[in-house]
Amino acid sequence: MSTEIEELAARFRAFVEARDWEQFHTPKNLVMALAGEVGELVAEFQWLAPGEPLDEAAMGRVRAELGDVTGYLVRLADVLGVDLIADAHAKLDQSEKRYDAESYRGSARKAPPLPP
Amino acid sequence: MSTEIEELAARFRAFVEARDWEQFHTPKNLVMALAGEVGELVAEFQWLAPGEPLDEAAMGRVRAELGDVTGYLVRLADVLGVDLIADAHAKLDQSEKRYDAESYRGSARKAPPLPP
Amino acid sequence: MSTEIEELAARFRAFVEARDWEQFHTPKNLVMALAGEVGELVAEFQWLAPGEPLDEAAMGRVRAELGDVTGYLVRLADVLGVDLIADAHAKLDQSEKRYDAESYRGSARKAPPLPP
Amino acid sequence: MSTEIEELAARFRAFVEARDWEQFHTPKNLVMALAGEVGELVAEFQWLAPGEPLDEAAMGRVRAELGDVTGYLVRLADVLGVDLIADAHAKLDQSEKRYDAESYRGSARKAPPLPP
Repeated sequence: MSTEIEELAARFRAFVEARDWEQFHTPKNLVMALAGEVGELVAEFQWLAPGEPLDEAAMGRVRAELGDVTGYLVRLADVLGVDLIADAHAKLDQSEKRYDAESYRGSARKAPPLPP
Repeated sequence: MSTEIEELAARFRAFVEARDWEQFHTPKNLVMALAGEVGELVAEFQWLAPGEPLDEAAMGRVRAELGDVTGYLVRLADVLGVDLIADAHAKLDQSEKRYDAESYRGSARKAPPLPP
Repeated sequence: MSTEIEELAARFRAFVEARDWEQFHTPKNLVMALAGEVGELVAEFQWLAPGEPLDEAAMGRVRAELGDVTGYLVRLADVLGVDLIADAHAKLDQSEKRYDAESYRGSARKAPPLPP
Repeated sequence: MSTEIEELAARFRAFVEARDWEQFHTPKNLVMALAGEVGELVAEFQWLAPGEPLDEAAMGRVRAELGDVTGYLVRLADVLGVDLIADAHAKLDQSEKRYDAESYRGSARKAPPLPP
């Protein structure tokens, strides 16, 4: 049984193969596409006052950008052969060690890196 | 039954709540965190020659960055209350209409936007 | 008489040539380097509360990042043969037309694009 | 006598003041605006094959994006009160020490950071 991420990756892969676009989808190019979409996402939030919510039109644009970001992230992981969810949990494992709840409660300061 | 994305979101949410960090995790701030991590990811690819693979050390750093990007993306979607996978499929629906396979085979040119 | 931007570009160019790095400094790679440095800059601001100033250490890191961003931007413009200051003034010319002071005073809403 | 960067900063400052936009131009928001414009710049290069030049239309878009990037970078530096050119030279000073020409000729590997 495949997960929802695997299904999305498989659909994107078929979309690319049907258009002979594998030549464009190098890891380097996909990272750039991801960065471009994140830039568009950032632009939706740049002038928001603190606590100001997105209006309905902006939320629609944000969802479209999040769709693009997710698509390229999943496509990039597919091309690289890595598991995004496993890698995210591995980083949370680290963060739980670096930021013990007692010392960092309510604080945004950065922890020192973990020893290797 | 929850999905792997929901499980990751729930874990990240608990991690944040245990540290009283909800005050920092506004959508605006999370979008910036996402952009910062994507910037680090881009930096891993910037000097690669065409077709040059990542060496093992670079792949380790890339996986760590992908873990961060995935974590913040899932966290942002959780705070906004949106479904990343659904939004990604909605964009692929559009791309299938904008880029018909026949006309865009082997071409990287941009299609005109769909009529609203 | 050359400007301060031309002098910076000339110094960066000599630095690159002395190391035989022109092969890495394609426009595409330089755009990625710029994006990576901007990502690091964003990361310095992501958790700041509204109105919270940068402390002295953060300001030092921000100045280092601004130095990197400026360097790569000037280097990219040098490789592309374009004049950043002229291009910035051209965009301000447009913005003055799109955002007349009367209609947009105190408003962050986006203007429609100018007719071509 | 003011430099071309100071003149651009002064023009942008007057443009903002005439619209009562200082409230939006916090350092945090300006960093986001810069990141958004850099994302648009990246998008112009993402599918280019190695060595493929920008066509004339793409070059026009790139120049418009470079104008936006330059404008926001200069505006950000103006609001922060820092000197971009001095900061860029300071980073080149460091790079000249970290990357001695002999050892790094023709190599894209990263140097270790300088000791503090």
